[in-house]
Amino acid sequence: MIESPAFRTDRYELTMVDAAIQSGTADRECMFETFARRLPNGRRYGIVAGTGRLLELIRDFRFTDAELDWLREHDVVRAPTLDWLADYSFSGNVWGYQEGEAYFPGSPLLVVDGTFAEAVILETLVLSTLNYDTSVASAAARMVSVSLGRPIAEMGSRRANEHAAVAAARAAYIAGFASTSNLEAGRTWGIPTMGTAAHSFTLLHDTEEDAFRAQVDAFGSATTLLVDTYDISRGIELAVRVAGTGLGAIRIDSGDLPTVAAAARAQLDSLGAVNTTITVTSDLDEYAIAALSGSPVDAFGVGTSVVTGSGAPAAGMVYKLVARRDDAGPWMSVAKTSIGKVSVGGRKNAVRLLDGGGTAREEVILVGAEPSGDVDDAQREGVERGLLVPFITDGEVDERYVGASGTQRARAHNASVMQELPIEAFRLGRGEAVIPTSYR
Amino acid sequence: MIESPAFRTDRYELTMVDAAIQSGTADRECMFETFARRLPNGRRYGIVAGTGRLLELIRDFRFTDAELDWLREHDVVRAPTLDWLADYSFSGNVWGYQEGEAYFPGSPLLVVDGTFAEAVILETLVLSTLNYDTSVASAAARMVSVSLGRPIAEMGSRRANEHAAVAAARAAYIAGFASTSNLEAGRTWGIPTMGTAAHSFTLLHDTEEDAFRAQVDAFGSATTLLVDTYDISRGIELAVRVAGTGLGAIRIDSGDLPTVAAAARAQLDSLGAVNTTITVTSDLDEYAIAALSGSPVDAFGVGTSVVTGSGAPAAGMVYKLVARRDDAGPWMSVAKTSIGKVSVGGRKNAVRLLDGGGTAREEVILVGAEPSGDVDDAQREGVERGLLVPFITDGEVDERYVGASGTQRARAHNASVMQELPIEAFRLGRGEAVIPTSYR
Repeated sequence: MIESPAFRTDRYELTMVDAAIQSGTADRECMFETFARRLPNGRRYGIVAGTGRLLELIRDFRFTDAELDWLREHDVVRAPTLDWLADYSFSGNVWGYQEGEAYFPGSPLLVVDGTFAEAVILETLVLSTLNYDTSVASAAARMVSVSLGRPIAEMGSRRANEHAAVAAARAAYIAGFASTSNLEAGRTWGIPTMGTAAHSFTLLHDTEEDAFRAQVDAFGSATTLLVDTYDISRGIELAVRVAGTGLGAIRIDSGDLPTVAAAARAQLDSLGAVNTTITVTSDLDEYAIAALSGSPVDAFGVGTSVVTGSGAPAAGMVYKLVARRDDAGPWMSVAKTSIGKVSVGGRKNAVRLLDGGGTAREEVILVGAEPSGDVDDAQREGVERGLLVPFITDGEVDERYVGASGTQRARAHNASVMQELPIEAFRLGRGEAVIPTSYR
Repeated sequence: MIESPAFRTDRYELTMVDAAIQSGTADRECMFETFARRLPNGRRYGIVAGTGRLLELIRDFRFTDAELDWLREHDVVRAPTLDWLADYSFSGNVWGYQEGEAYFPGSPLLVVDGTFAEAVILETLVLSTLNYDTSVASAAARMVSVSLGRPIAEMGSRRANEHAAVAAARAAYIAGFASTSNLEAGRTWGIPTMGTAAHSFTLLHDTEEDAFRAQVDAFGSATTLLVDTYDISRGIELAVRVAGTGLGAIRIDSGDLPTVAAAARAQLDSLGAVNTTITVTSDLDEYAIAALSGSPVDAFGVGTSVVTGSGAPAAGMVYKLVARRDDAGPWMSVAKTSIGKVSVGGRKNAVRLLDGGGTAREEVILVGAEPSGDVDDAQREGVERGLLVPFITDGEVDERYVGASGTQRARAHNASVMQELPIEAFRLGRGEAVIPTSYR
């Protein structure tokens, strides 16, 4: 069975559509906004990801006979609603922060404009994709920022749901990771894949030497040999003996890494393997990478911490109705007003103010303004940068933001945005967002 | 494109197969074991989940032309390995803990017996499914254990990857949750779905009264009205006025819940709505649920915390080669021996010792023993219970453990297992595993 993305949805989206069709309010034009009330764990900035995946899912969001039959059998909605769902295809407009963009509390990351029914029904899918992918990209960016330019490979597939793993590889790549272990991410998103062998490969053979020899026979001396199955020092000596001083790299997956890496470098050099690089991969996160800043490590592999958002596995985004109008009337701001979880109602535009040196100084949310895709004009001014770009116009997805090429575009955008953040953004300790958000 | 589960795999599994085929070791019979070295965050027990999903994925694990072409184009493995992959279908044996079973550090949760090549290639998929689903089930079980029998709905789809959300709904249901918001989980796994309306539905209408009336018109007075968009007390008064004292339930999604729930109950009773129930849904986790033990709350909805494993988003399981043999020789135990991350080598069987009252007292791992599916015999003895059941025999999946019926079976097994845990298991504070694991 090919599952429609339309069913990756909370039941209440459909019952709301059902009741709104019956009460005659389903066609009121609405503006929904996705934002995060705060950055998790005292972080200084977040990185948006998931948008490219989301746009494809919105494009494919259809109720086929399989879904309609199930809804009918389970009496979820009534007949007129089933007819409406059968004809569903999003025909409105979506603006948003470019994928790879930095964001702050209140940033209107995605703005969806359409009828209530066609826009509300996207809520679950919008939040699932953006919350998870953004969580990964935000953690990944912190790791990249302390890696001092040394490449990081994403290898956390085994610590995430098997589909989430593919999305995680993509999000980490957008935020500057160099490669992934995940084959599907390589195929679907064009991300470079890497990987050679695990401890089981060494244990399979009668001796470590047999295992190294088998691997070098298969992949040549430029391969990466995992040297910590038995004794690291003997493993390194053996690796160079088997592969020669042209050995590509060694990988170390355990032990106190600063100590071990320094000893490994000295040993490799003493054996003449001065160009053999050192990759480390043992439970790394941004703090462990930072702690290796002075160590002779050439590359990192990161698993669990990046695919679980390094302590913040969901970005905490919400999807809120902020404005609506009746028929052709004026836009009315709306917001929940009871205690707790307060939102700022109204349509919004967003710009980032930069100082003369091109450094970000303020996130300005223009309340009551029309979302604007006029990025180029704003960029020409040099002191402010428009943040909302049009992703979907009258139901048509802008293809520049989707697929493998959209992923590359997002990665390039992220690289540019990271240059713009104040240096204080890269402190790992807890604090406030590095620039303030103001509403005007 | 229908993606094959075979590509939800780390590249190094395939390069290991490639090198092993070339070195003549690919066909050595191997035993891989999945276990967790510790329980996360000082928990007292964990609950296994994901097995039913995994067994279907192993059954469907095939390399189609699409995968083989990609591997050839990207020069990942050589021609003989491509031929081997083209013929791949798992032909070995898998034993494991039943889904829904409790586990402890070192419990051999899944044992895979096959050639090195056919078993190693499953590593990523085994760990992805078990690590995530077990993380959710383990958190969910703690929430259920403090809910005092009041139903909990899973509604965290928006805070998890859109596919992970479906798996999370299933894992929470296995651990005792009553229902889910996720439609795909309802369709695929037969889990009861729930949900009525969000704040946006109220904000869509000109007044809260219009919104309540629209919902009651559509679904009758037995529906659940969300009463906290503006003022909870006025919302409750209005809800009962619109729906009558036969109103099914109110839902509260914000505020200090013990205070708010008590006031809501008093108000409902004073309005004569004595049978109207109260559902609360605001950022709940096991601690918040426990804090509501004395409150007049009738049902809970849990989102973020359950789908992210409540602070432990990956269960930390590993998949290790523990024994192998050459040709028809005897089994040899193998294990990594360098510092850190030490494993206990050897084939294993596992039994849980129970006292005369049927309470679990010890997890016994029998090292060097053959995995045994002889559960019935062990259960007849009454004082010990065999934990490993045969899931796959010579490549044939036992259908009782998969699909919607397998999910029901897992839920029933969990309910029985929870009765067997010592009462100390249900303390929420940090501590040691509630029963010791011993190796014999």
